[in-house]
Amino acid sequence: MGKEGRMIFIGERINTGFKDIKAAVEDKNPAAIHDWAKKQTEAGATYLDVNLGAVSADPADMCWMIEQTQSVVDTPISIDTNKPAILAEAIKVCNQPPLINSSTAAVEKMEVFLPIAAEHNASIIGLSMDESGSPKDADMRVEKAGMFVMTAMEMGIPPEHIFLDPIAMPMKFMQEQQQEILSAVRQYLLFSDPAPHIVCGLSNIANGTTHKALINRTFLVMAIACGMDAAICDVMDKDLVNAAKCAELIMNKEIYADAFAI
Amino acid sequence: MGKEGRMIFIGERINTGFKDIKAAVEDKNPAAIHDWAKKQTEAGATYLDVNLGAVSADPADMCWMIEQTQSVVDTPISIDTNKPAILAEAIKVCNQPPLINSSTAAVEKMEVFLPIAAEHNASIIGLSMDESGSPKDADMRVEKAGMFVMTAMEMGIPPEHIFLDPIAMPMKFMQEQQQEILSAVRQYLLFSDPAPHIVCGLSNIANGTTHKALINRTFLVMAIACGMDAAICDVMDKDLVNAAKCAELIMNKEIYADAFAI
Repeated sequence: MGKEGRMIFIGERINTGFKDIKAAVEDKNPAAIHDWAKKQTEAGATYLDVNLGAVSADPADMCWMIEQTQSVVDTPISIDTNKPAILAEAIKVCNQPPLINSSTAAVEKMEVFLPIAAEHNASIIGLSMDESGSPKDADMRVEKAGMFVMTAMEMGIPPEHIFLDPIAMPMKFMQEQQQEILSAVRQYLLFSDPAPHIVCGLSNIANGTTHKALINRTFLVMAIACGMDAAICDVMDKDLVNAAKCAELIMNKEIYADAFAI
Repeated sequence: MGKEGRMIFIGERINTGFKDIKAAVEDKNPAAIHDWAKKQTEAGATYLDVNLGAVSADPADMCWMIEQTQSVVDTPISIDTNKPAILAEAIKVCNQPPLINSSTAAVEKMEVFLPIAAEHNASIIGLSMDESGSPKDADMRVEKAGMFVMTAMEMGIPPEHIFLDPIAMPMKFMQEQQQEILSAVRQYLLFSDPAPHIVCGLSNIANGTTHKALINRTFLVMAIACGMDAAICDVMDKDLVNAAKCAELIMNKEIYADAFAI
């Protein structure tokens, strides 16, 4: 294991995919943003993901969301956009080095996103795909993630600022992909020493299933066993957070204490 | 992954370490044995572990426990003893090929236990240790387990009848051993094709901790991610069984169905 330290929880809730956040942005009423910023921070979020979604293409709206978040907590921001114009403005209003969510390994993406990350001392998520589409197996994930790590490091971004994302896929519809994802995670650990971080958008796993919480929690624990150390997830799910903390104890990344669970 | 199929749950409860079972044996009142045989079978136990413990050294008492168990269910027996004299008698009363729990990789143990397993078409657990004592790391576990597999196969016992046990140790007191155990499990998969089964006495993991159920469940899910496919455990713990079933879906060993959890 090439790295140490605590699980990185990226709170997913400040996203216009949720009705209360959509309304907050449309009405410029920040109450829901303040509320989720505080609640997720109290729950232990390392970063707060902020996602403007399709509500607006105006960078000013993304900046407003980030500023409102930062007005109530000091938690670093995860800037969730694939639009360079929004990223370029949003990163300027961040009080602390943010996490950029996300680039892919496509050259035209990396050429835009990686220099911005390097300039701002930011961390950045690299999805294990390029213009050829979603990865089909572990090998393709490793190939694309390897391209991303190599390019990022060449631009001076250190491994501890690189987050590799194997691209979580729904278990119900792509059951055979889950082992490919876990296999890719194991191989990502070998890219550098210290290893890059390994992250996923956890809620994708349980799409369309009953027992969503059980599936998300179980997948995360298995992924931690393989080397994952970060997740974009529902940090308010105590069972999820406790399972991840317990898995980290088993990985010997934290010293055991009887009161480890919340 | 060299093998397919469902998780093998070995119900731990018919053991004189529990007061009701101790009393049942002492009083020759089989009610508690009948009760736990039925309850564990309904909960999905693949085998029922039967352990006479220190209550008696008389093989007839072990035979009585097994016969009482078999009087109410058809579930195969796991004969839990390290005494050859007890095993030799107990195996004769089993209605179906049992699981022998357990031998070690010590030559003098294997010379006694393996021929009995071969003769009765039984499965057998091999602890990853020998006369030199408990394993200190993954390498020692792999060395001892490799010796056990090789010897068992030379005696004509097929891989699907071999259960390798990396020896679970308490997380609270031996936190650094947990990664060694998981690493050993991964390596056991490479011994043969199909791979041998991999099992552990799960309840050892959480000894002395608060949050026992969480720790047992989380360890088991991580071990399944590494290749474990069997556990001696509390099969009445629905959260544990559901987590294991969910982990098997993620490993693509069972086809997903919405109603997978109980």
